[in-house]
Order: sequence, then structure tokens, then C-alpha cells
Amino acid sequence: MFQIDETHAPSLRSWVASANGHADFPIQNLPLGSFTPLGRPPRGGIAIGDQILDLAALAASGLLQGEAQVAAEAGAGGTLNPLLALGAAPRRALRRAVSALLAEGAPARPELLHKAADCTMNLPAQVGDYTDFYAGIHHATNVGKLFRPDNPLLPNYKYVPIGYHGRASSLRPSGGEVKRPLGQRKPPEGAPVLAASQRLDYEMELGIWVGAGNALGAPVAIDQAASHIAGYSVFNDWSARDLQAWEYQPLGPFLAKSFHSTVSAWIVTPEALAPFRAAQAPRPDGDPQPLPYLWSEADQQNGALALDLEVLISTTKMREAGLAPHRLSLGSALNMYWTPAQLLAHHTINGCNLAPGDLLGTGTISSPEREGFGSLLELTDGGKSPISLPNGETRTFLEDGDEVLMRVRAHRDGFAPIGFGECRGTIMG
Amino acid sequence: MFQIDETHAPSLRSWVASANGHADFPIQNLPLGSFTPLGRPPRGGIAIGDQILDLAALAASGLLQGEAQVAAEAGAGGTLNPLLALGAAPRRALRRAVSALLAEGAPARPELLHKAADCTMNLPAQVGDYTDFYAGIHHATNVGKLFRPDNPLLPNYKYVPIGYHGRASSLRPSGGEVKRPLGQRKPPEGAPVLAASQRLDYEMELGIWVGAGNALGAPVAIDQAASHIAGYSVFNDWSARDLQAWEYQPLGPFLAKSFHSTVSAWIVTPEALAPFRAAQAPRPDGDPQPLPYLWSEADQQNGALALDLEVLISTTKMREAGLAPHRLSLGSALNMYWTPAQLLAHHTINGCNLAPGDLLGTGTISSPEREGFGSLLELTDGGKSPISLPNGETRTFLEDGDEVLMRVRAHRDGFAPIGFGECRGTIMG
Repeated sequence: MFQIDETHAPSLRSWVASANGHADFPIQNLPLGSFTPLGRPPRGGIAIGDQILDLAALAASGLLQGEAQVAAEAGAGGTLNPLLALGAAPRRALRRAVSALLAEGAPARPELLHKAADCTMNLPAQVGDYTDFYAGIHHATNVGKLFRPDNPLLPNYKYVPIGYHGRASSLRPSGGEVKRPLGQRKPPEGAPVLAASQRLDYEMELGIWVGAGNALGAPVAIDQAASHIAGYSVFNDWSARDLQAWEYQPLGPFLAKSFHSTVSAWIVTPEALAPFRAAQAPRPDGDPQPLPYLWSEADQQNGALALDLEVLISTTKMREAGLAPHRLSLGSALNMYWTPAQLLAHHTINGCNLAPGDLLGTGTISSPEREGFGSLLELTDGGKSPISLPNGETRTFLEDGDEVLMRVRAHRDGFAPIGFGECRGTIMG
Repeated sequence: MFQIDETHAPSLRSWVASANGHADFPIQNLPLGSFTPLGRPPRGGIAIGDQILDLAALAASGLLQGEAQVAAEAGAGGTLNPLLALGAAPRRALRRAVSALLAEGAPARPELLHKAADCTMNLPAQVGDYTDFYAGIHHATNVGKLFRPDNPLLPNYKYVPIGYHGRASSLRPSGGEVKRPLGQRKPPEGAPVLAASQRLDYEMELGIWVGAGNALGAPVAIDQAASHIAGYSVFNDWSARDLQAWEYQPLGPFLAKSFHSTVSAWIVTPEALAPFRAAQAPRPDGDPQPLPYLWSEADQQNGALALDLEVLISTTKMREAGLAPHRLSLGSALNMYWTPAQLLAHHTINGCNLAPGDLLGTGTISSPEREGFGSLLELTDGGKSPISLPNGETRTFLEDGDEVLMRVRAHRDGFAPIGFGECRGTIMG
């Protein structure tokens, strides 16, 4: 499933000079996205350094054959759903063909490229349904402790990959403004009031893009689940904690989440991530064995992802003073209690049909250590312990003008490091 | 907003003979749907008796002008989203034109009609997002009592129109088979097991179709909310109670709901329902006044719906014995604690954007009396008191082969009664 081939060679360089040594998009990455060149219709593309390879132009170029050409044609439109629907083999063929085309030594074809800075990035796919999981066990523990100090994890947590349906319409690509939501909040005394959220937070997650779908009534077996995943993005599940606390019983989070969710613009494929697969951490003694529909030897051996998860903040005052964004946390995706394949298998066990371009959030991923906590709720002990910023400002929750910047990066000895590109948003009052 | 005009006259008859006295689709109803004639592409239609008026044929006929023609063209495609997006005025113009066209005395135009029995009904619209509310206060009380006998309603219930995001991909039109879902269930003792649900239930709801949408960040004011509703259907939110009990803490129902939801095929418009509006029942003494964003005098005076809600069951043995379906309940939509406009205004108060064709479920609507309980969970006291069927069978929850049939009807002295058409599904093991 996750094979290493010539496209991963660390020595591989591109005739696109900016790709060589690029922190996110060297030739070993080749993530998929949807972009709009100035004054032209949206189309699919592949990031390479500070350029974007135009899949519509590539499909029309006559340079590709076979499955790679089929994939380029499917990616030539305004959303990547048709390309995602094709599944792994055409996607892999496209990767190999594009890698050869962009490699140093191949004829330079600048007519297929756009400067990324001149383009607008779109949501990569039209998301039919978005689901958010809760797979970050340290996050679930930290949040649970705020309510139940002695018994933070509910009894189902280690059996059920907990998740809930989210709102697809308010998903937006990285870069926009995020309007602080109005909502009901219950003060400690007295009746609830309608007001702008005072406890606005981010959540550091991975987004998982569904590739080939499944029919209603036909669960995806755990051994097949990874083949239904088309790639990954950085995902910020903005959360209004005060709205959530008042509204969420008994049916779960609703308006506390649905005002806006931000996803990074590029889909990093399972092929690009092949070198960064890892074994799922062994469950601690006493934790139950997953039920058979969630357990596969192969998935346990390489179904996890060794990815660094970084969150930074830049306040209005920091920007005015010329200060660089300040790191709030650095964690790892290895802290997920369930693999992406387990999440997908669980989602379909009841027969629920997933479709190409559906998005699954992992839930907030926190490390056991404070430096890897993936939300302000955790970093500030539920808003009780403000954090300090380099210019002397403090924060419990987000203030207007705060920009949150998330990055995901992968590195491993013997391989070229790659990154996911930014997931960025600025709070607006 | 809900004006009575010549299209509601009880004396109005149609040259489509089956419409006159039809329990669901007399000329006073004219609901919107999407249908597929045998061997031809799907298109929009209007139910009239046992026939369907073809909106594609009507749009091409040259019989309409102005806004009515615009609406017919928008409804000519395979889904009604473009027609729903137009909002109230073109929809009303289409209704008046079609009423005149189908009225007794107008020239018969059988070339615009299809026999409904020869057509397949589709989902009326492509549903971008589906949300389920919990507006049936007697249902919420009955369910709450199973967990908290002394304190069934949570403190937020009378302030917050409780809702959660549902799964859009597994919505299906009336008539299909519903596969009994697999899922985790926790026995009273021991570890959870994976098995087919043993506590499979229906929920009697109304579906509310969003017409004109709103932009992200732009809440819909309560006085405008009704104008964003394009109509109503019958909605069965099939529920696996055993899966739900184990999975739903802390993020709400997930796989217990997302295996299948059934919606009736026709959208009954606000125009057709104008005679059946009612005042919202006064809140009992001691209940809080809704917050201002949920309160409008006009909505309180005529925002509720006087609709009869009927649930029937037909088991395999009943059908083999030639028995008619057995009524399980007859309730009323007047038992909603929140009006449809309040649900929509609440949904958008945080800036969440609704889109044409989005579907809102009301949540199960139960009457205070047992004969109007909208689910088996309530009728059987949580599965403890089986109900008896006419042939001596008993049920606590649904068994394979059971068909559940829901009907919604409206009647009022001085007006022609109308109905919503069937919402039907059969459990398959």
C-alpha cells in the first residue's frame, strides 16, 4: 500500500528551482489542490515549490498516457472530486508521470506552471459530508479532566472511535477571516444571554480526504480502509467554548463549531507520505484490544503517521511591532489513539456511505506534554492560566485580530522533508 | 407571508380527474418533487392526483410567462435546488400559473403529465447539509425520563433549540429497503460487542427544506426566517437505540442515525400550507420567554403548523394475512416547542450558512398522550412494555420485514384537506 519508489529519492531535484529545498513542496511531495488563476476558471493543480502545475493544461498537453492521463483529465475541473473518486492507482500513475516531468534533466515546461502567489486557492473538493472524530486521546483526557478530574475518559472512549457529523457548508480554505460567532452563553448565575463568543479557540487537527467511496449498506473492511483515503490536510476546527458548554447536551456540539472551519488548500497524498508511516503505538497495559472490525496487523504496523503539528499565533500588536508568529505548540500525529483507517472503517461499519471528497477531521491532536497541547482550552487549563506572548501580551482565548497559523511537516532520515502548506485564519470581531 | 388566494378555494377542481377528492394531492396542494419517467432523465414535477406535471415539458411549452416561467425552468433539471434557491415569489407565481392551467375549465393538456405509478421518485434536492433538531418537547421529556425520571429535560432545553448535524449522504426517498445496521453495543455486563442492532426504531419528524440561503457570517433574523423555508416533507429518522446509548457521549448521535434516513418525495410548499398555519401554543407558566433573536410576534401568531402526524406498521405476517397496516400513533405538529422559523433563525445566529436544498429535521414530534408518541422507544417505555398488533404479534423494536409508513395530513373547515404523500421503508436483515 505505502510503497517507496523513485519519486521519493532524496536526491531528486526539479527544474523548478524554487522546489529544491522548499520546506513544503519539494518534488517529493506533489500535493493536489484546486486553484483559480487570475481571471480564469478554477482547475486542479499540483504544488511544486512556489509554482502550481496546471492539471487542465497538463491534460491538454499530450505529455501523459494511460492512467496518468485519465487522472489529469479528472483533475482538470474546478474541484478534485472526480480525481479523488478514481482511487489509488491512477493517482499514483499521475504522481510518477509528474515527478518525471518536473525532474531536473527533463525539458522545462514553464507554460504548464502558474506562480502560486498570483492564484487563489479553493477548497480542494466539494465536501458532501464532513465528520469530526475525537481520536486525540490526550486532548480527550485534558478536556475530560475539566469536567471530571478523577475520571476524564468516558467508558466508551477506548472501544469506539468517537465522532460526530459536522457542517460542510462552512468549511473554507486557508487564508480568510473568521468571524467571531454570536451565540447563547450561560453565565454562572442567571439566564443565558446572546452575545459574541468570549471563549473562542482553535483546534489542531488533520483532515482526511475520502477517495473512492462505498455504497450505502456496504461497510469498508479495515484492511481496505486505507485504500479509500486520498490524502491529508491541516485542519483547524475553530470552537466557541462558551457556546459549546451551554448547547452540547444531549446531542453534541452544533453552533459552537459550525460558524467556520479552515482546511489547508493542498491534499498531501498517501503516496507522498509513504516514507512517514509508522507503527501505531502499543496500547498501554489494561487498555482493551480493539474489536476485530477495527484491527488489522498491517494497519497496526504502518497505519499511523509520523507528522509534526505546529501551531503559531500572531496578534495585531505583534504584527505592528514586526514580530514573527509565536509558536504555541509542537506536537505529533503519533498521539492519535486510532489510525485513519480505523476511523474510516468505523464510520462505515453501520453501512454509512462515504463519497469522494468527504472530509474527516481527526479531532484535536495533543501530546501528553503541555508543549504539544493542540488548543488554548488545554494550554490555559480551561481559561484559568493565561499564556504569555513574546511582547508581554497574554491570552486565555483568541482576541480579534489574532491570526492562528498551523503547519504540518514530515521528516525522516534518508528522505526529503515535506510539508502540508499553511492553514491560516484571522479572527474578526 | 402566508396569504390565502384563489389557489386555496375549496371549490376548485381539476381536469385531472384523480385530483378531485385526492387525499394527498388535490389541486390545492401542488407539491414539488424530482422524478424519473421510465427511460428518460430525471426532472422536476408537481403532483396532481395520481399524475405528475412535468416541469421540463411545462418550461418548454410556452404556456408560462414571467416569474412562473423562470421557476419552471429552474425546476426542469434533475434536482430542485435551483428552483428552491429562487425563494418565495417565483415559487408562488408558478403555483398560481399551474393552478390555473390544471383547473377545471382550462384546456386539458395530458401531454404535460406522467402517470405517477410509472415514474421513480428521487430525493427532491441534492442535500448539501442535513441538520436534525429536537423540537418535540414531549419526545424530549419521554426520552429524558428513561435516563433521569425526576428531571427529564436538561436546563438548556427551553432556551436553546437543540440540534445536531446529521449525515446527508444516507438520505433516501420514500420506498426503499432499510438495512439493519451493524454497530457496537454494550451489554449490561462485560465488554461491548459488534452486532446487528437489536433496538431499531423509527422517529416521526417533519423535514424542512431550505429555499434561499444565507451567506457565511450573516444570520437570518427571525422575521425573515420563514421566507427562507421552501417547504416540508415527512421525515423518518431511523434510529438504532442500542448503538446510540453506547456511542453518544460526549459528542452526540453518530452511527446510530447515519445508516439511513427516509424523506417523503414531495415538498409541500408554504403556499399550500397557508390555510393550516396556527399560533404557537403559549408557553406554560414558568417557562422562560425566548431570547429576542428567537421571538417575533408574527411568528408566534402563525408560525406553527396544524398537521396530523400518523405512523403505521405492516409486518410480514400481517401482509401475508392480507391485513391493512396498523396505526401506531396519531399526533400533531402543534407539539413542537419551537417553530420552523425559530429553528432556522437559531441555526444561523452563529453565522452558519444554509444553502438551497439543505434539510432540517424537526426531531421526533410526540403528543403529550401516548396515542401520539412518535417512536417505539416511547410507545414501549424504553422497550419494557411490548405493544400488540392486530394479528397477535408484539413489538418492542422493529423486526426484519416490518414496514413503517408515515403520513402527514392537513385539514381545516372551509378548506380542501391536503396530504404530504407517503414516507415508507421496510427493514431488511
